[in-house]
Amino acid sequence: MRDFDEHNITEAVVDSLAQTRDARLKTVVTSLVRHLHDFVRDIELSFDEWNAAIDFLTRTGQMCSDKRQEFILLSDTLGVSMLVDAINHRMPEGATETTVLGPFFVAAAPELPLGADISAGIDGEKLSVNGVVCASDGRPLAGATVDVWHADDDGYYDVQQADLQSLAMRARFRTDGDGRFAFTSIMPAFYPIPHDGPVGRMLEALGRHPYRPAHVHFMIAAEGYETLITHIFDAESPYLDSDAVFGVKNSLIAPFSCEDQSGKVQRGLTYRFGLKPLPNIKGDS
Amino acid sequence: MRDFDEHNITEAVVDSLAQTRDARLKTVVTSLVRHLHDFVRDIELSFDEWNAAIDFLTRTGQMCSDKRQEFILLSDTLGVSMLVDAINHRMPEGATETTVLGPFFVAAAPELPLGADISAGIDGEKLSVNGVVCASDGRPLAGATVDVWHADDDGYYDVQQADLQSLAMRARFRTDGDGRFAFTSIMPAFYPIPHDGPVGRMLEALGRHPYRPAHVHFMIAAEGYETLITHIFDAESPYLDSDAVFGVKNSLIAPFSCEDQSGKVQRGLTYRFGLKPLPNIKGDS
Repeated sequence: MRDFDEHNITEAVVDSLAQTRDARLKTVVTSLVRHLHDFVRDIELSFDEWNAAIDFLTRTGQMCSDKRQEFILLSDTLGVSMLVDAINHRMPEGATETTVLGPFFVAAAPELPLGADISAGIDGEKLSVNGVVCASDGRPLAGATVDVWHADDDGYYDVQQADLQSLAMRARFRTDGDGRFAFTSIMPAFYPIPHDGPVGRMLEALGRHPYRPAHVHFMIAAEGYETLITHIFDAESPYLDSDAVFGVKNSLIAPFSCEDQSGKVQRGLTYRFGLKPLPNIKGDS
Repeated sequence: MRDFDEHNITEAVVDSLAQTRDARLKTVVTSLVRHLHDFVRDIELSFDEWNAAIDFLTRTGQMCSDKRQEFILLSDTLGVSMLVDAINHRMPEGATETTVLGPFFVAAAPELPLGADISAGIDGEKLSVNGVVCASDGRPLAGATVDVWHADDDGYYDVQQADLQSLAMRARFRTDGDGRFAFTSIMPAFYPIPHDGPVGRMLEALGRHPYRPAHVHFMIAAEGYETLITHIFDAESPYLDSDAVFGVKNSLIAPFSCEDQSGKVQRGLTYRFGLKPLPNIKGDS
């Protein structure tokens, strides 16, 4: 195994994987090597460009910390995260579409009674949210847990605000006997992904903005069903057509306002969520 | 631009590059996105695998320092560095083939007189090296600078040895009127690339060893010619057929020993280097 040129080196690298014990790892790395080499050959990568790529990847890794995951931002902004999401969530009729989890989920959000105000007194236009959780065949699901979280009207989540003493604009609810949940909060604003690092500079060089349209996150879990991770987007937000992370789906866009009986505009969101049954439900015990 | 599935998201990401000012950057990122998405689709990357990839890239970036470039090791061990080398050094007849620079070059090596001993007293079997530097058409090149560096007989370079007070097993020479240079040193040994980081763990998982066959590095510069960066490999070294970085070419393998007139084996290397003329040589001034 020697004397490689630009044509035969790919098979040489693939041959070097012959002793890989884990069959799936072998498949993944074989495909990675073929695609990576094809990319380098297609564009005839120069030495200066190779150096720039090594430097970019190094700075991206060194930007990562407990509070910042720059490689996830890179995956998000190149559409890889949403592609992985799409491949792993082929949804049946009646099931709500998924989108990215994002970096602002907190596992320990408190469970609150239905109808609670989760705004923790933060300024903003009041928003009332009413949801119903069903199976994809339409049966309502009682006792499902519904995690919600969203940004404030400046586009910041609670965990981004050093002066906040507690969690805000996030909570967990449990659906009632009809699969319903409800809460009030404030209107979320559109916001930029963190863009003061290598990925932000990449977006600039590509002539792209870092913004995401306004949305509320939902994570909905019920026994026997695939946990649903999604957002609902404000139908009137800017950036619906140029989400920096390619997360918008038409089925996830809903009005965040409606007219009441007197013709006055009220901020409110109503949405029906459908959950996909797990493929192998064990028998009752 | 919304409502992407696993099939149309790639064109959406490519479309988002429309405002990229630098045409070459646009070409490179467009190709990267297409190949990266094809890779993810081909293997149907799972969420767990995506998480593992994010974690691997993060640890690789965080292993990098002034003294360690883990992303270059990754590029080397996946054959990307040698592929970039091959694409950028398509050599004419008579020109010596190239290979990777590696991490152990030092720009400030001292210029020494022809015939000098560069071993700095380090233990090892004596090796005498005789070279001639020519243009690819065969004319000898006087006054070319020849940087040489190599590992000791334990496989370590001087810069890896904290107890060494000065440079050793490296120097710069200048060819004489016949294009010749010569020096003595000690036999280099095969050695592992640094493998105590993420790339080392990757090689283990792939059932690969981290070794490179024994070699001496050369960087040869002459006005009007492309600077040649290459190694000459010891024809009797282990790992010639499984170099961890895919750097071995048949034309770069040479005997490091020969029999003298009395039949006794002497360690010695003789090699003729050919340099490629630069494409656009300006007229005499």
